[in-house]
Order: sequence, then structure tokens, then C-alpha cells
Amino acid sequence: MSDLIQSWLPSANSPDSEFPLNNLPYGVFSVADGDLRCGIAIGNRIVDVTGLEAAGLLRADPDAEVLDAPFWNDFMDLGPQVWATFRAALTAMLKADASDDAQDAITTYSVPMAGATLHLPFRVSEYTDFYAGRHHATNVGTMFRGAENALPPNWLHMPIGYNGRASSVVVSGTDIRRPWGQLKSPDHETPIFAPCRRFDIELELGAIVGTASNRPLSVDQANANIFGYVLLNDWSARDIQAWEYQPLGPFQAKATATTISPWIVPSAALIPFRTATPPREKPLLPHLADTTAMNHTITLSVTLNGEQIAHTNADELYYSSAQQLAHHTTSGCPMRAGDLLGSGTISGPEKINRGSLLELSWGGKEPFTLANGDTRTFIEDGDTLALHGTAKGNGYQIGFGPCTGQILPAAKDPFQT
Amino acid sequence: MSDLIQSWLPSANSPDSEFPLNNLPYGVFSVADGDLRCGIAIGNRIVDVTGLEAAGLLRADPDAEVLDAPFWNDFMDLGPQVWATFRAALTAMLKADASDDAQDAITTYSVPMAGATLHLPFRVSEYTDFYAGRHHATNVGTMFRGAENALPPNWLHMPIGYNGRASSVVVSGTDIRRPWGQLKSPDHETPIFAPCRRFDIELELGAIVGTASNRPLSVDQANANIFGYVLLNDWSARDIQAWEYQPLGPFQAKATATTISPWIVPSAALIPFRTATPPREKPLLPHLADTTAMNHTITLSVTLNGEQIAHTNADELYYSSAQQLAHHTTSGCPMRAGDLLGSGTISGPEKINRGSLLELSWGGKEPFTLANGDTRTFIEDGDTLALHGTAKGNGYQIGFGPCTGQILPAAKDPFQT
Repeated sequence: MSDLIQSWLPSANSPDSEFPLNNLPYGVFSVADGDLRCGIAIGNRIVDVTGLEAAGLLRADPDAEVLDAPFWNDFMDLGPQVWATFRAALTAMLKADASDDAQDAITTYSVPMAGATLHLPFRVSEYTDFYAGRHHATNVGTMFRGAENALPPNWLHMPIGYNGRASSVVVSGTDIRRPWGQLKSPDHETPIFAPCRRFDIELELGAIVGTASNRPLSVDQANANIFGYVLLNDWSARDIQAWEYQPLGPFQAKATATTISPWIVPSAALIPFRTATPPREKPLLPHLADTTAMNHTITLSVTLNGEQIAHTNADELYYSSAQQLAHHTTSGCPMRAGDLLGSGTISGPEKINRGSLLELSWGGKEPFTLANGDTRTFIEDGDTLALHGTAKGNGYQIGFGPCTGQILPAAKDPFQT
Repeated sequence: MSDLIQSWLPSANSPDSEFPLNNLPYGVFSVADGDLRCGIAIGNRIVDVTGLEAAGLLRADPDAEVLDAPFWNDFMDLGPQVWATFRAALTAMLKADASDDAQDAITTYSVPMAGATLHLPFRVSEYTDFYAGRHHATNVGTMFRGAENALPPNWLHMPIGYNGRASSVVVSGTDIRRPWGQLKSPDHETPIFAPCRRFDIELELGAIVGTASNRPLSVDQANANIFGYVLLNDWSARDIQAWEYQPLGPFQAKATATTISPWIVPSAALIPFRTATPPREKPLLPHLADTTAMNHTITLSVTLNGEQIAHTNADELYYSSAQQLAHHTTSGCPMRAGDLLGSGTISGPEKINRGSLLELSWGGKEPFTLANGDTRTFIEDGDTLALHGTAKGNGYQIGFGPCTGQILPAAKDPFQT
């Protein structure tokens, strides 16, 4: 467990802040009607690193202004050495013993977080969604195939995943309109086209690929190439999914929206929270085997209209993000800066640890009750769902900012402009 | 059936040319060590439209030089009206009665195709692969689930598809290295990590989305928004696929490479070849129903080391590309200029009409014999596979250029740089 690094900026030293000097997450922000700029969260402020770079006060690349962009991709692609140097330089400017010049530079090139709008922090090159949480896979498998056949035969041997839709990724706070889709209930002969009735969340951790590659990566190489992590809500239309997913997997059920947190927590900030993956029932093939501790102890929770309905931990993932990425490259699949890998729903062993409403309501059969007496099986129009994630150090905590979305009613006529 | 439009360029009038004035396909080319430029194929030449635009001799957008780019995406995004105006302007410059000035401009800004290198004609935003060929779905389903359950229950109600990997898309002529992957044969207890043993092609038509949208499109709207078509070979590792695809669909089996033809044939060029989809066993829901003829009569064939091993026709597709795109948007899935939709393998009713080696060798159980006496089940190292497509008019034909790839042996150690 590591200690708080003191900053000269008082708000960064508050134990309640998600953004101490130990974090320094990457985001993209704007103020008033200004342009989009790269920013780093610190306490209750955002450091305008695009501005610092333009003023020559902080450089990532000696040859190009990579931060003069509304996304972090160009910076990502410079690789782990540059990320480390940049982080060290920024840390020096923000530490308690920073020079007066450094403090002046930060004061000039920073804005209050309260007045800023946060945007998608990176251009999502492609989006892959894994299924790496064992409790979730077991719960869903039990519901659909019975307890005997809950886990597919391949599940203990590799991180199962599918390609998602990068265009669906939006930043926290974006409203989500309930989708239409083709649905067929088992007691009807033919499908209908109607608004989704079983709209759901999935509580996930998202890992962001830092630099491009076009050959298989070892688990260690993959680990070194993860730029950072976001919270990720993989909105899921369960009734669309049930009808469409055989034999080629989820498609329109997952294409409406995928919400991520506005801040990318650097991999470096999470090193103190590294922990091993859970015990393995079957050994992994050597190219996927655990090398060092690559999971993270991050408490995760879900709120529905502000009320906590579930909590779990990222250490439940059976496959670390590094193992997911390594598997992703086995075929020689080219990866690019800004590829986003969702972990799959992270549930835990108890009912309160379930990271989706599908699990919390056991396929809709066991409605759960909210504090105000209302019940839920799936999401209702007007509901606001939020994910939260915290890694707790000594006297500090690391956060991602909120990962929130409110559900708007389905369009009356989806084809009407 | 439409007639050849005569050009003043003799090679464009040859009945053997794939690139008569009726075609005018979009490509990206370079000569010697020059930069990548947008080009249009005509006869045995490539018109340098980037050069024509820079010289003020041909404009797509009055406000911006959209062709000053190594891809057609910016042009695509201007929409169908601009595509039509541009096509008309270029046709006027190339027609038999073109002015001397027009002929001079074309002569100055064109290069012999023989000396040019062709590149990926567009930036693939995202890649989706459908499964819209009924004979293929029936053949594969029969092999895997028996003739009784060949077609999944949803198949006759909507175009089944999955998200593929855009980063895997390469232009014709790119060598393809046999992938490694996790494999498990039914008679082994545990999987192994080894080179793919059942590497295959899929003969497909690819449709390219022209402009962005973020709401459901009707079939007619989708149809109007298809910029053009390419030939597409969805290289497939059948043994990787068999072990990984349950329950979330194909992933690494399809991620090694996807080869497309170098030329995008404009939707407008294929209008004379429009034809209806095959008769429907069950009526489609209204939002997916056929409106006008949206399939195309395009003869398609596969050669292995130059020998034709299969031929079929794009009119076999049970769902047109417009229906695929319409279904793709039902959930509100945002689409972008440059999204690529593979049709799925197009097979026909007879054995010679099968568009994959999986079907031609019936899962490897029925090797087929080549002219030189060799047999094949799946692809062997060194094999060159090519797709060909032709739409035949009166005195002319429309082609896509080749869609070719040679298979290199798997890496000895895939983790070695």
C-alpha cells in the first residue's frame, strides 16, 4: 500500500478527492465555448496540458505537439517510456516542493473542474468486449444452460471475447435512448419490431491499448502496452440479444451505447493496487499464463437513481486485461493506439456483488426492491445508472470520475427524423 | 441491360476491360516513390483526381479539397448528391465527345495503371460481417448441426451479422501469414497453441457506408447511403473458430486478415444490374422488407493458384446490402463514412457454387482435386487465392480488379520479433 504524494495544491491532498497526485488521469475538456483540450485531473482542477505544451512548459514529444488534439491517441502512440517521462515531469510540477515557476505555470494553465465540460478522452479505434468475469459467466450460463453447463468448455482456457462497436462509445453523462429491436418471446411464433423491454447495464473495467502492434504479444508485452483504465458500462438489450446471438454472438443488443468514465487512470497509478488473478481450476497454456500480479484491487459499485444496488471488485476478473490483450493478438490481429478492451461484467460471489440487472433480478424472475419501495427487474425510462470505482491507498484514493447515463424513452417512431 | 458508354480513350472501350466509362471505380494509387492519391480507373489508366482537384479542373466540394487525402472517406461523407455530380463531371470529361480541354486535362492528370501501386481505397471505420447467403448458412449449419437444424431460428427473419476487426482489412496483393491460435480437437482433453490447420477463404461482396448516421435507417435510406462495393475475402481459421465461437461468436478466427479489391465500384455503376432477392420463405417485418430490387447480378468466382475452383453470383444473397445496413442501424447504432459491411459467404445451389473451402471439401471430409492432380481440403502454404467479380452489360463489363492473397507459412515462433 502506497502513501499519498503531497501536492502544493490543497484540494489534491484531501482524502475525499479522486484525483490526488498519485492519480493524474488523462481527460479531454472544454470551458465555455472553447475548443477541446487535453487535460489532467488534480484535486478540484484540470491542468490544461495542451496549453502547457503550446507554451513550451511541458513537452511529451520534442518534435511534435501531440497534445494539440481533442484526444490522447497521438500521445498514447509514443509508448510507455514517454508516458513515464511525462508523468514524472507533471508530478514534479505538482509536488509539494515544486518550484515557484512550476506552480505559476500550473496556476496559469489550469481551470476549475466544476466549470469544465468533459468529453470522450480518446478516439476509440476499435472496441472489444470480453467475458472475463467468472461469476458473471457462471450466473448467465446457469440461467441460459443450467448449472451443469454454466461455463462453456473453452472458458477456462482463454478469455472469450467478441468485437463490439467503437462508434457506440460515449462519455459519462450522455443520455441513452432506449433502443428498438427485433424481439421474439419463446411463446410467440414470429418476432416483432418494438422497443427493448429488458434494457440492462454491465459493470466493466475498460483497458486502453497504447501503441500499435501487428503480431502476437506475450502477456508481459501486453501488460506494458496498456495505457490506462476506464470504467465501462456496456448497455445491453437482453431481449434483442436473446433472439439474435446464435450463432455469431451479440450484435445490435450491444450497439446502442457504451458509456465510459471521462478520466483514463494511468496504468502507472494502479501499480500499487496490483493483485493476482483468482486461483485457476485448470492451468493456462504458457502463452496466456500469469507472470506477475496483473489484476487490480479496485472496489466497484453500481447506483440506480443514486442508491447503491451492487458492489464488487476488479480483482474478481479471471483474466487480467493483459491476458485479454495477449489473447486478442494471438492470430496476428493488428492492434492500434486507442483500442478499447472491455473486461466483461465483473460480478462477485454474493447476490449484492452482481454487476448486471440480468443477474440481480435473475433473468427478471426475482425483482429487487429499492429504498423507496419501487421494484426493478430491468431499467425503466428515466432511471439514471452510474458506475463507481475506487482504489484505496494510505490517506488517498484513486478514482475515474463518474460513469453515468440516464435512460430516455424509446422514440415513438424510430424512422422519423 | 445497358450499353457501353463510348470514351475517347480507346482502352476504355475494349470489351475486355473491367473499367469502361460505365464503371469509374474509386481507388488510391501511387507511382514510384510518390505520395498516395485518389484515383479513378478508366481503361488501362488511372485518373489522378487529387491532381485534377488541386489544379482546379474538377471539384467535389466547392469549399474544401476533399481529395487531397490518401483515402476517399472525406468525399464519401459529402453524400449521394455530390457523388452523382462528381460522376457526371468525370463522365463528361471522358466521353467520346469531350472537349479538347477536358481531354488535355485527363491526359495530363492520369497515369498508366500498369506502373501504379494500388492501396487500400478508404480508411475502414468499422467492419461488420454478415451471414446473408442462404446456401452458405445452410451448408455450414448442416455440417455443424445437421440438416434438420441447419438454419438458426432467427435466420429467415433478419440478416445475422457480427462485428469484425477493421484493422484486419488489407488491399488485394497483400501476403497473408498463416496464423497461430488456440485449437482443440474433439478427441483431445485440452487445447493447444499451434498454427492454424484449417485456413480458409470466404467469397463475399463488401458494401461501404457513405455518410454518418445515428438513428435507424429504412431500407430505402440505407440503399441510398451505400457508396459502393468491393470484393471481400474474409480469411477464416476454421479450427480456431470451432473452439472459440461459443457463445459470443467468431473472434481471433477472423482477425488475421480481410482482403478487399483495390477498386470500389460505385453503387451508381451497378444500377443496371439490380435484381430482386431470392423468394422468401417467411415474410420479413416491414422495416426490413424489400422495396425495390436491391441485389445485383454479379458473377463471382474463386481461383486457387490460377485455377477456378468455384463460381457463383451475388444475386444469391438472401438479404441485400441495403437490408444488412438497415438492420445494422435498428438499435440506433451510429454508422460512419467508411464502415464496411461484408455480405457473408456467397454460395449457390451446386457444389461448384460453394464460396469457401469448408463447403467445397465438406468440412475437410471430401478433398477436391486440382487440374495438376493435387488435392485440397483447406489452404496450403504458398497457395494464392483470388476472387473475381464481373457485371456484364451490352458490349462492356464492370470489374473490381483482383482480390488476391498468397499464404505464407506460419511464423516459427510467433512471439519472436
